[in-house]
Amino acid sequence: MPENIGAAARAMANFGLTDLRLVEPREEWPSVEAERNAAGALEGIVTARVFDTLPDAITDLNVTFATTARTRDMNKQIFTPHEAVEHIQTSGFTTGLIFGPERTGLTNEDLKYCQHVLTFPVNPDFSSLNLAQAVLLMGYTLYESAGPGVIKPDQEPPASQQKLEDFFLRLEGALEDNGFYKAPHLKESIQRNIRTMFMRADFTDQELSTLQGVLSAFIQKN
Amino acid sequence: MPENIGAAARAMANFGLTDLRLVEPREEWPSVEAERNAAGALEGIVTARVFDTLPDAITDLNVTFATTARTRDMNKQIFTPHEAVEHIQTSGFTTGLIFGPERTGLTNEDLKYCQHVLTFPVNPDFSSLNLAQAVLLMGYTLYESAGPGVIKPDQEPPASQQKLEDFFLRLEGALEDNGFYKAPHLKESIQRNIRTMFMRADFTDQELSTLQGVLSAFIQKN
Repeated sequence: MPENIGAAARAMANFGLTDLRLVEPREEWPSVEAERNAAGALEGIVTARVFDTLPDAITDLNVTFATTARTRDMNKQIFTPHEAVEHIQTSGFTTGLIFGPERTGLTNEDLKYCQHVLTFPVNPDFSSLNLAQAVLLMGYTLYESAGPGVIKPDQEPPASQQKLEDFFLRLEGALEDNGFYKAPHLKESIQRNIRTMFMRADFTDQELSTLQGVLSAFIQKN
Repeated sequence: MPENIGAAARAMANFGLTDLRLVEPREEWPSVEAERNAAGALEGIVTARVFDTLPDAITDLNVTFATTARTRDMNKQIFTPHEAVEHIQTSGFTTGLIFGPERTGLTNEDLKYCQHVLTFPVNPDFSSLNLAQAVLLMGYTLYESAGPGVIKPDQEPPASQQKLEDFFLRLEGALEDNGFYKAPHLKESIQRNIRTMFMRADFTDQELSTLQGVLSAFIQKN
C-alpha cells in the first residue's frame, strides 16, 4: 500500500537509509499517496526503485535478512536487530533488510531467498508493530550503533545473490533431470531445505565457482 | 490528540510498558478515538490516568527524563536513549519518560520539572519522528536491554563429525570417479576448500541425509 511505503521511507530517512527497493507494489509507482506519507523523504533523500520479483531486487547484495514478527520453524539462524546490525557492521558486506507487506509479512517463498532471519523482541502478549515501525526500529538500531572505528576484517564477501541463484537453479535443474524429486509434492520443500542449508555457508565467488565445477563434474558424465 | 495517545499506548504495550499518565489531554478521556488507535492496548494492558499538571503526574517518581527532538541550550545532561535506559536499569529508581504533544513537543516550562533530557539520534538532515515513534523507540530500547531478547527456537545441533566425514569421503570419491581433479597436485587443496565451505554451514543430521540423497542422484545415473 502506498501509505505504508511512504511511512517506511520516512522512517528510513530519519536514520540515513536511502536505498529503498519495492517488489511488485500493489499500486502504481511513483505514488502521490506515498509521497504524502513520506513527509519529504521521497524528495531527494530516499530513492525508491521497483522490481518484479524479490530475487531481482537483491541480485547485487551479499547478504539478506528477512524480518519476521515471529520465529518460524526452520533451520536458519535467528538474529535480534542488534545482532543483525553487528553482523552488518563487522562484515562490511552489502546487506539488504527485507520486509513483508503490512498485513501478511513475508511468505515462506520469500524466505527462500534470504540468508538470515531477524525477529524483533516484543511483548509476547501484545505484539503489534506495523511495517513503518519495524523499519524505524531497524534504522534506529543501525544508526545508533554506527560509529567510527568499526573494524572490517579482511574477509572475502559472500558471492552476489545473482550468482547464488544461478547455482541453485542449475543444481535444481540437474536434480530434476536425475530423478531426484521422487515425490512431486515434496519438491518445493526439499528445494527450500537445500537452499537454506547452503545459504548458511555464505559461499564466496571463488567457492561458488568450485561448486559449479563439482556440479559440472557430475553433469557432464551423464 | 486522542489518536496520538492511542498510538502511543499501542507502542507501549509492544514493550510491556503499562503506566500511561496523561497531562491535560485536549479532548475528553476516555476516548473512543484513542481506543481505535490503540489496537487493544488500552483494554487491560496499558492503564491511562489523567492529571491536571505535569508536577501532579510525577509526584511519586524518583527520576524523570524529558524527551526532545533536538538538543537545547540548557545546562542539563543530555542522554541518548541507551544511556537513559542504562541509568534506569542500574539505578532501579522509579523513572518517568516525559513526551510532549505531537506538534509542539515539551515546553521550557515542562523541562523545569524534569531531571534529565533525552534526545534521539536521528539524521540531522531529516528528523521526523512522531510521538508514537518516539515512545516506540524508548520502549524498544528498554525492552531490549532488559532481558534475553527473543526466545530462540530449539535449533538442531550439527551432525556428528563421523557423519560429516562419511559424506566428505563419499563426495571426494565420486568426484575422483568423475574426473574432477584435473591437476593432481591441486587435489588436496581443492578437497580442503570444499570441506571448509561445507563445514561453515554446520549441517544437521537431516541435512546431511538430504545431501547424501543429492549425491546418490548424481552417482546412480552414471
